[in-house]
Amino acid sequence: MTSAASNSLSTRLLAGERFALARMISWAENSNSRFPEALEAIWSRVGRATRTGVTGPPGAGKSTLVNELCALIREEERTVGILAVDPSSPLSGGALLGDRIRMEDRTADAGVFIRSMASRGSHGGMARSAVDAMDVMDAFGMHDVLVETVGVGQAEYDVVAAADTVLVVLCPGAGDGVQAMKSGLLELADVIAINKCDLPGADRLTSDMTEAVHLRTAGRDLWAPPVVQCSAGKREGVDDVLAAIKTHREHLKDQLDSHRRRKRIQQVRQVVGERMEEALWEEGDLAEQVEAILRTGTTPYATASNVTQSLLRTASGNQAKGIQA
Amino acid sequence: MTSAASNSLSTRLLAGERFALARMISWAENSNSRFPEALEAIWSRVGRATRTGVTGPPGAGKSTLVNELCALIREEERTVGILAVDPSSPLSGGALLGDRIRMEDRTADAGVFIRSMASRGSHGGMARSAVDAMDVMDAFGMHDVLVETVGVGQAEYDVVAAADTVLVVLCPGAGDGVQAMKSGLLELADVIAINKCDLPGADRLTSDMTEAVHLRTAGRDLWAPPVVQCSAGKREGVDDVLAAIKTHREHLKDQLDSHRRRKRIQQVRQVVGERMEEALWEEGDLAEQVEAILRTGTTPYATASNVTQSLLRTASGNQAKGIQA
Repeated sequence: MTSAASNSLSTRLLAGERFALARMISWAENSNSRFPEALEAIWSRVGRATRTGVTGPPGAGKSTLVNELCALIREEERTVGILAVDPSSPLSGGALLGDRIRMEDRTADAGVFIRSMASRGSHGGMARSAVDAMDVMDAFGMHDVLVETVGVGQAEYDVVAAADTVLVVLCPGAGDGVQAMKSGLLELADVIAINKCDLPGADRLTSDMTEAVHLRTAGRDLWAPPVVQCSAGKREGVDDVLAAIKTHREHLKDQLDSHRRRKRIQQVRQVVGERMEEALWEEGDLAEQVEAILRTGTTPYATASNVTQSLLRTASGNQAKGIQA
Repeated sequence: MTSAASNSLSTRLLAGERFALARMISWAENSNSRFPEALEAIWSRVGRATRTGVTGPPGAGKSTLVNELCALIREEERTVGILAVDPSSPLSGGALLGDRIRMEDRTADAGVFIRSMASRGSHGGMARSAVDAMDVMDAFGMHDVLVETVGVGQAEYDVVAAADTVLVVLCPGAGDGVQAMKSGLLELADVIAINKCDLPGADRLTSDMTEAVHLRTAGRDLWAPPVVQCSAGKREGVDDVLAAIKTHREHLKDQLDSHRRRKRIQQVRQVVGERMEEALWEEGDLAEQVEAILRTGTTPYATASNVTQSLLRTASGNQAKGIQA
């Protein structure tokens, strides 16, 4: 069943070849038809890495913090895979921002693998590719996988929500706490880092966030995300952030399996949706049919009902053919 | 075919009752099952409004500019519907920001209807609801519909892209031009407003954007988005922004129909996808089935293939029953 190409790629990945790791993530990103098979060949190795999602508003210093967290984790002799899904990340275009050099310190280290992924223009497909990339890094043997996104937009939420622990990074000024609360970032957070804590307003932001956490969780059987100050640029407090992440993982322990299973079910549902859409929509010149129906002055909903029924008929016809073949 | 409730709501909407307008938008937002029928009853009145999407990074001053554009349009005796799909908008939670009062100037005006819509947690459904809300405002008879979103995330793109003209609002400092270019905002723009043009860096941003537009469009058969300076807070230059929007509409003229038809086809496709997912996924306890398959160590993709085939079989069975019934 397994084709030669996907077989050799997964073999090379399991043998520790970084080229194979990079290639297989590209397959995931481009929805290469060989990816599912290649994933199957490495699937038994997936599930050992700890996964941390890092999000927050642009300018909060996520990339710098991720870089410093990576340095600390490396000191523990653990390997790290970093996935940056972020249009503003130095990884995915930030040569312009001049931050890139810093991250490149890490790329010389064989225990670190960094990959960026563009977030625009790919709907739910991006979240799926990001989860795939995390799985691939996991199977490769990275002990820790860090995924960084900008904390706005559903697809970005889906990415970090797929992690075991979600770290929300805020800083005084840009992307303040009120915004974070309103945009639902706080509900997603397992740990809150107040970065650039030497800037004016940091203590205020810290106490605001602590209070917001208290209001949400007091008296309820909910994890209360610790609010931790740090200054990633000055390498201060990053150890406290890492300790908080570990505390959350310890807390999660018994629920980790069920948490991950829920995420997998969602992933399957999404893939099923995509498969159905592809399988059904690409039958015939549906766009023209739709246009013809719309021209008659039919609403999009009535048109959709019409088309859905016709698709189900087509599907059932094909299914019958498939069974006979 | 038409139920009493949706019938009377659409009748009241066409009679100009604002309550019916608000109610019907709620139906769209909550995916009320009566909405499609109600839309059908008003569908012949949809298509007359001009639709402008307004987007840009948080803090660029979108809401203020929308408010001032609204004031200018009202001076032309045209009515305005405003839809704010933006977690940071004063409309959707900004009592905290203190900007709300200003917008409320407008709410006393019977020629203006303002509605906010939460953007989080609803995937593509949000984009669909927003388009529905624009259709309803259009059918109600609003001459201009303005829809405002934060310019990050696929769903937000989908919302503004459904408009006839897309206005991208930038300002010096927060949410700069480099970010806008990287996040694909520029490719979406029909008009670019440089707001807060009295701030330092405004001229630089203006010339950067002008150059970026030139690089993209020079020598190609593409609309070159005008870059217009304004200071919405000081009510300066807003007339130039409105003039640029009108120029774009004039340019669009012949293509407006085909532009709108393309958008409708996408809308139908999305609704079809949702219908299929609902119809198929909600058959039986699929989540449990999925979990059982996953437990055997099967990858999400293989599980999805398995489930897709079983869904198509179910669908074809139901279809057969439907035909017999």
